[in-house]
Amino acid sequence: MSEFRVRTDLAVEAKESFEEDNVEIRGVRIDEDYDTKNEINITRVVIETKNGAKAMGKPMGTYITLEAPNMAVPDEGYHREISRVLSKYIKELLGDFSKEHSVLIVGLGNREVTPDSLGPLVVNNLLITRHVVKEYGKYAMGKELVNSVSGIVPGVMAQTGMESAEIVKGVIKETNPDLLIVVDALAARSTKRLNRTIQITDTGINPGSGVGNHRNAINSEVMGIPVISIGVPTVVDAAVIVNDAMENMLHAMEDAESLKSIGNVLNTFNVAEKQELFRELLSPQLNTMFVTPKDIDETMKRLSFTISEALNMVFQTV
Amino acid sequence: MSEFRVRTDLAVEAKESFEEDNVEIRGVRIDEDYDTKNEINITRVVIETKNGAKAMGKPMGTYITLEAPNMAVPDEGYHREISRVLSKYIKELLGDFSKEHSVLIVGLGNREVTPDSLGPLVVNNLLITRHVVKEYGKYAMGKELVNSVSGIVPGVMAQTGMESAEIVKGVIKETNPDLLIVVDALAARSTKRLNRTIQITDTGINPGSGVGNHRNAINSEVMGIPVISIGVPTVVDAAVIVNDAMENMLHAMEDAESLKSIGNVLNTFNVAEKQELFRELLSPQLNTMFVTPKDIDETMKRLSFTISEALNMVFQTV
Amino acid sequence: MSEFRVRTDLAVEAKESFEEDNVEIRGVRIDEDYDTKNEINITRVVIETKNGAKAMGKPMGTYITLEAPNMAVPDEGYHREISRVLSKYIKELLGDFSKEHSVLIVGLGNREVTPDSLGPLVVNNLLITRHVVKEYGKYAMGKELVNSVSGIVPGVMAQTGMESAEIVKGVIKETNPDLLIVVDALAARSTKRLNRTIQITDTGINPGSGVGNHRNAINSEVMGIPVISIGVPTVVDAAVIVNDAMENMLHAMEDAESLKSIGNVLNTFNVAEKQELFRELLSPQLNTMFVTPKDIDETMKRLSFTISEALNMVFQTV
Amino acid sequence: MSEFRVRTDLAVEAKESFEEDNVEIRGVRIDEDYDTKNEINITRVVIETKNGAKAMGKPMGTYITLEAPNMAVPDEGYHREISRVLSKYIKELLGDFSKEHSVLIVGLGNREVTPDSLGPLVVNNLLITRHVVKEYGKYAMGKELVNSVSGIVPGVMAQTGMESAEIVKGVIKETNPDLLIVVDALAARSTKRLNRTIQITDTGINPGSGVGNHRNAINSEVMGIPVISIGVPTVVDAAVIVNDAMENMLHAMEDAESLKSIGNVLNTFNVAEKQELFRELLSPQLNTMFVTPKDIDETMKRLSFTISEALNMVFQTV
Repeated sequence: MSEFRVRTDLAVEAKESFEEDNVEIRGVRIDEDYDTKNEINITRVVIETKNGAKAMGKPMGTYITLEAPNMAVPDEGYHREISRVLSKYIKELLGDFSKEHSVLIVGLGNREVTPDSLGPLVVNNLLITRHVVKEYGKYAMGKELVNSVSGIVPGVMAQTGMESAEIVKGVIKETNPDLLIVVDALAARSTKRLNRTIQITDTGINPGSGVGNHRNAINSEVMGIPVISIGVPTVVDAAVIVNDAMENMLHAMEDAESLKSIGNVLNTFNVAEKQELFRELLSPQLNTMFVTPKDIDETMKRLSFTISEALNMVFQTV
Repeated sequence: MSEFRVRTDLAVEAKESFEEDNVEIRGVRIDEDYDTKNEINITRVVIETKNGAKAMGKPMGTYITLEAPNMAVPDEGYHREISRVLSKYIKELLGDFSKEHSVLIVGLGNREVTPDSLGPLVVNNLLITRHVVKEYGKYAMGKELVNSVSGIVPGVMAQTGMESAEIVKGVIKETNPDLLIVVDALAARSTKRLNRTIQITDTGINPGSGVGNHRNAINSEVMGIPVISIGVPTVVDAAVIVNDAMENMLHAMEDAESLKSIGNVLNTFNVAEKQELFRELLSPQLNTMFVTPKDIDETMKRLSFTISEALNMVFQTV
Repeated sequence: MSEFRVRTDLAVEAKESFEEDNVEIRGVRIDEDYDTKNEINITRVVIETKNGAKAMGKPMGTYITLEAPNMAVPDEGYHREISRVLSKYIKELLGDFSKEHSVLIVGLGNREVTPDSLGPLVVNNLLITRHVVKEYGKYAMGKELVNSVSGIVPGVMAQTGMESAEIVKGVIKETNPDLLIVVDALAARSTKRLNRTIQITDTGINPGSGVGNHRNAINSEVMGIPVISIGVPTVVDAAVIVNDAMENMLHAMEDAESLKSIGNVLNTFNVAEKQELFRELLSPQLNTMFVTPKDIDETMKRLSFTISEALNMVFQTV
Repeated sequence: MSEFRVRTDLAVEAKESFEEDNVEIRGVRIDEDYDTKNEINITRVVIETKNGAKAMGKPMGTYITLEAPNMAVPDEGYHREISRVLSKYIKELLGDFSKEHSVLIVGLGNREVTPDSLGPLVVNNLLITRHVVKEYGKYAMGKELVNSVSGIVPGVMAQTGMESAEIVKGVIKETNPDLLIVVDALAARSTKRLNRTIQITDTGINPGSGVGNHRNAINSEVMGIPVISIGVPTVVDAAVIVNDAMENMLHAMEDAESLKSIGNVLNTFNVAEKQELFRELLSPQLNTMFVTPKDIDETMKRLSFTISEALNMVFQTV
């Protein structure tokens, strides 16, 4: 039922929706791995062709997803482990790490809306060094390789009147970093992944379908330097959970003995008829609403710290 | 279908769910009024008997609801008008205003979760006078009637380990106010009321069904002084919108020509069977999730200011 | 004693230090005015020549200072009056207002340090319109002249690793505003001006002596468009108040009958000897310290609101 | 020159001012220790008699001070070490730790004023358990000894109209903890101790001279349970640094060859005359001002985390 496929920022979910339909996607390579010690499931989705990108609704590139059911648990030692694993995969995507980096880290999102504050919180906890390296020279840092780290929280369009992409592009032009890292809160397709999944990708942030070169994208094509983006799904669009419930209802009708008669009726409908049925049930307000857990404040504190620690590990200890 | 009646903090919604069923409720009196100039709909629900309270799932008392579709619009002058109207109805509930008040205003909720930050934000903007009156005497204020205003933000249980009711009760014992006002973000039954409705009641805050004397209630019975509570619905429980969609689906099935056959099948089910059907469709995570608009930060700023201005009007200008 | 002249961001204070010495400054024109109704003292300092700039330690241009002793008082009506007066003088500096403006408003400073949070707080309360004008066109706004307002809070160097000037320059290049307004907390020379003075100038923000074209300046020369800056002194450098006390001490020694003998001794010292004496008394830590009032949080809330209202008046109601 | 002795919240500074005068204080016992590994200086001041208390201007009890010059350095590993050392001394003051504690931790101060936000920030990072223990029982925690931890941020009088002591007393009465821990930002006597010193004491928080039983004190006498307070000096009163500079000036005058003549004159003054001289030099505004470092936001983040970690170590791992 790909017609009802709802927007997700997670490649791993885009992939799943095909699996449900038992469709194989050409041009998309998938590896799965399990870190037994830390109970982290690692999925690597590589979209290798334009056709693969079109099918997945996501640009070509590598998407690494870490899923750790205990990520929401307040265990400091465990979070340090996740930071370590995360830093390893960030380095993998960065490739050659024998040279110095001048990196700009961007915290996207709205610091005033709790589930959207991930990016701003991560930048708050980073070790920023660019101004020190510039003033005292890298030899003052007492290390062989010294990365220059700068950070910015551009704010959201309702606060600034500008696209984040415009601000980031301007800052890149003036300060010339050679690498961009973007941290953002994501929308998941399913509540079960909220706040326990981290996605790292080399495709950046791509509004809309994500395919084609959009001027508001924050990717290497638009920005002119490599872009790594790190995201955690913290919300589900309200329309999604309603859609889910309705699909579940239809399945229930098909399965349950007592409801079989309904299922039989529904099976006589074609896809267009079903879609029409669903559309009527969605109140228009839902499109501007999101669903998020009640303890989102605790989760944001913990996750943002885990990610900023991972980034500090990547860029401070060479 | 009162079996599916979901929790709402708004008396006006509890009332509506009966109207849908064409049921009259004894012991409940309802008045409606319209402020043409400010386009505010005012509903006064008075629960007069224990039976009425049981039927409504809310304690006996008066519930005044102001509904203003433009409440979310950023028009400073209009918000001053709403503050004025609101202050009038707060005074109505307070009754005799010829004597001085020593009032404690409590901002319930979690300041770190945007849609739950209404209470803390309101207390932030209050004119607090108790310490001034205590130190310099009321004659120093140059007015005949001088109210003493104190305020507190107790925090939520995950932050304090304590019930708000415990904290408020302790503070009342030590500081002896003669009036308690509680401001809180509410859960609505429907997204259409979010952020455009203010409810004022003399029944306080009552966890659970709200009937019977719960030790964590913040009402006049537990606190020993009159309690006025002011609330704005800022979230809808995630389970509610799914429930709504499903009810809509059933209605659609009953109505639509093409679906009549399903409707006929469903009509053969009894209430218990329908309930069972619905329950299966609700994912367990949804119970700890809420739905809220994406621009909730702007709304919270504006609404909290409107309410604190109304309270300042009530207690500063006698 | 111009040798001890300490840094001030206020032209009106630079001027005063000359008056103390009874020195007339060529190339500097000064007007004073008094708004009796609102009890606001208005001083206009115009630095007309390079010599004037050198003498004042400030770039050529116009500096308008509003001093209102009651600015710290929590009277909402009075603050609206100040906003109105302020908006009048901002318009005066802007000159021709018959055409539309596309303005970028920058909130300099550190939102995490209370007395430095003025700029960020002002931008928080602005009516931002650029994205709306861009999406719906100016005719949708229902006005003849529609200004496009964007805003940004660049953060401070310790947070970003970048100069604010770099960030602002980049954003200007990408978004092409035709006017820049910069809001910043200032350092005063005297505690008596703290939080009751607003300075508006067309010279922008100029680090160091402010004379000569510094690459980190945010002025029209560097940015390529007119720059208006609005500032309120919220801190005094710690070294300044110590310096003041010492100067007072010397004056006391010269004046007081009982101390005349000391005064006589000091009068035999030359300036260099006095300077040496003072330097020893300043502990080195003081250079990284500032002095600010204990109720700075209340003051920042009120002042930032007054300034953002003034800017909203300037750009929204044409 | 004890006449000029200015208020300090640190016992170690009160002690020093006597040492300067070569005075021995009866009833005050002092131990010093040095933690070579972590470069922490530990001073234990025990005020044993009423006379000692009167001389020191502090109540009888034990004051342990940790001074670590590197406390301001952003080294996570080092901060964990300080947390460990701090937790050891907190336990020392607590005495018998074989039984379970039900502890209320109070974060005093104003979260809106950066150098006063230490207490609120510490409570933000605590592991709060009281509600969990109450709901699921201590056996659910899987430990033999389970402490119940609750926390509150009462706010400051300008925000609440109430004394913190009133709020804390009320909360204690309702929730019955058997131990109170109070965290607060302190005022130091000297800028050199700012943000690198932690004081732990069993005497609580005592406004004014601290001697005698003040109703706004938060100590065991008023609260009825043991009180441990933990403080870090984050500000110096503005009047203090001026006073210091003036004393330095007099010393300079007495010492420097060229100034000897002035010194000689001053030596003919008695204490009262000197005091008069100083008083004139203090501008009245200074009494409501404080001095604090410019990077106070970073320091507060780091120090509050160090203290909350120490408290988590004390109460979570038995």
